[in-house]
Amino acid sequence: MACVINVNLPQQSYEIAIAPGTLNTLGEYLGKLNLGKKALIVSNPTIFSLYGEQVLTSLKSSGFQVSTCILPDGESYKNLDSIKKIYDIALENRLERSSTMVALGGGVIGDMTGFAAATWLRGINFVQVPTTLLAMVDSSIGGKTGVNHPQGKNLIGAFYQPQFVLIDPEVLQTLPVREFRAGMAEVIKYGIIWDAEFFAQMEASPHLDALANINPELLETILKLSCQAKADVVGQDEKEAGIRAILNYGHTIGHAVESLTGYTQVIHGEGVGIGMVAAGQIATNLGMWTEGATARQNTVIVKAGLSTQLPSGLDIEAIIDALQIDKKVKAGKVRFILPTEIGAVTITDQVPKDIIRKVLQEMM
Amino acid sequence: MACVINVNLPQQSYEIAIAPGTLNTLGEYLGKLNLGKKALIVSNPTIFSLYGEQVLTSLKSSGFQVSTCILPDGESYKNLDSIKKIYDIALENRLERSSTMVALGGGVIGDMTGFAAATWLRGINFVQVPTTLLAMVDSSIGGKTGVNHPQGKNLIGAFYQPQFVLIDPEVLQTLPVREFRAGMAEVIKYGIIWDAEFFAQMEASPHLDALANINPELLETILKLSCQAKADVVGQDEKEAGIRAILNYGHTIGHAVESLTGYTQVIHGEGVGIGMVAAGQIATNLGMWTEGATARQNTVIVKAGLSTQLPSGLDIEAIIDALQIDKKVKAGKVRFILPTEIGAVTITDQVPKDIIRKVLQEMM
Repeated sequence: MACVINVNLPQQSYEIAIAPGTLNTLGEYLGKLNLGKKALIVSNPTIFSLYGEQVLTSLKSSGFQVSTCILPDGESYKNLDSIKKIYDIALENRLERSSTMVALGGGVIGDMTGFAAATWLRGINFVQVPTTLLAMVDSSIGGKTGVNHPQGKNLIGAFYQPQFVLIDPEVLQTLPVREFRAGMAEVIKYGIIWDAEFFAQMEASPHLDALANINPELLETILKLSCQAKADVVGQDEKEAGIRAILNYGHTIGHAVESLTGYTQVIHGEGVGIGMVAAGQIATNLGMWTEGATARQNTVIVKAGLSTQLPSGLDIEAIIDALQIDKKVKAGKVRFILPTEIGAVTITDQVPKDIIRKVLQEMM
Repeated sequence: MACVINVNLPQQSYEIAIAPGTLNTLGEYLGKLNLGKKALIVSNPTIFSLYGEQVLTSLKSSGFQVSTCILPDGESYKNLDSIKKIYDIALENRLERSSTMVALGGGVIGDMTGFAAATWLRGINFVQVPTTLLAMVDSSIGGKTGVNHPQGKNLIGAFYQPQFVLIDPEVLQTLPVREFRAGMAEVIKYGIIWDAEFFAQMEASPHLDALANINPELLETILKLSCQAKADVVGQDEKEAGIRAILNYGHTIGHAVESLTGYTQVIHGEGVGIGMVAAGQIATNLGMWTEGATARQNTVIVKAGLSTQLPSGLDIEAIIDALQIDKKVKAGKVRFILPTEIGAVTITDQVPKDIIRKVLQEMM
């Protein structure tokens, strides 16, 4: 397995390389792309202790002057204070407009590094080296970068594309199973919103709940088709003026649940899993989707080891209030992405609060 | 006098309207541009007390829901803490992706509002209503937004274009004379880097040091030709990959002087004036420019009431060190914009430190 997927955008196109065992060749990739002479690796302590040395060595042996910024792990540190730390290290090491920030980690590291790269000297080079399944198939692609506001997820940010994404699937071997399952939520999402055949392949697999239970061919399919789906959608609508919003399937209620549980009790992919279950039920209640399709979706979600229930102790009215802060709110109305069949969704702001309330109550 | 200048960019073009007495019609302009239903005016106490009411009334009577964010005045508040205040008010008032942030003020307000608009919800609408000469002819046009890092000016920021710029020259009547003169530095800059005929018109005017001493025709020329020069250059190179760097004439040493004096003893335009004198002398020392042209430039700078000397107490080695932090540093080398004739400049990183030192010593 080794393939390249192109993300084609009007102003800047770039490649996603999916290539096992190539983490220690990152310097060679970047050398070919002509990305300045200085690189700043941003990572967290866990990932840096596992993979930092080989990335550092690879960059140095390709002639880069390398500095590092190790940020504490977790969504609760995805804030402006962490961005300030990246700025300080960029300043100390005199990063220039032609220098490169390298995100080595999961979605949190990728989003923060991208935002720092977007805003340091009004924009320097940026490379993604995702180390979680979720970052590989979703957050490292498409240029959404940013941090959380104390009162809402990803409210601060920028659209800023990487110059290159390197996916080395071998690093998934050290990924905690909970993180693997969270990533599977985004993978399943692509099946529901974009690719019915891909969904059927996941349906046919006896297990989806751990890397060890998935055969290499299916893993290859998962990475390839997910990245391709993301690249296709983003290529049509980089800044979410229209169709790109379908990638937010499961995210409307998902974000609210994450936010209300402080971003730790429910992690992003788990929130998306719960959000997809809710969106499916809302669509069924509105007569847009069938009970049968809802059941098929939820079976795959359960097979991936994900919850279909709200975490205990959550107040339903608080969830409904939190929806109002979502970036997707337009003219005061919450927009939902709802499935119409396996492989296709629609966007609507016509969801009565009573239906949201009813569906959430059933998920308690 | 009333004219429109177009800024033509690949992804987004917009108009600059220069129209006296039209501040109270801002709502009508925005209504035509279809800029959502909510507007947040960002301003400072001085400007808001003078002009806030009429802008607020105009927006409200055009159907906008308007909120305001009043930030303390001055370059020393151009930092991430001020940006956080804008975010908080944007959140409180539930600004959406289709909402608009309006910068009512000088360069500091414009740069901060633009950066907040660029990064709130990954980018919302942005309109500039500059109230200083410097903001009218320079900082409100071209999409450079951002804040200062404690150790360097404008190190944090984004390229983010406004949807519209409204210049009402009548507001200059309340501008302090020191600010007027600072703005004249950028005006003179356009003559040196771009438009020899425009420079000659300024040379022919008996006075340039206060609004009251400038006839209406010359003021019209100053606003129109400065905005046109900026629009022309930015239209050729939005993100400063090449020619746009010429707009930084006088800014290399200017920024260092501002930064070392804490952004208050020497304000931006005054720094640019000093920087242009230094750049002219460096070019003369390198044999690229003549003594005669240097003298012509400096005469106009003096006529605008600007200093041609370094502020007392500044350490020359500290200035030289501060140059290294400039955004324009490339491969460790400081880049200078140097004049070759009145109306034309070149970009070079081949300036020996000894010459910089000598020129600065002569300016003490």
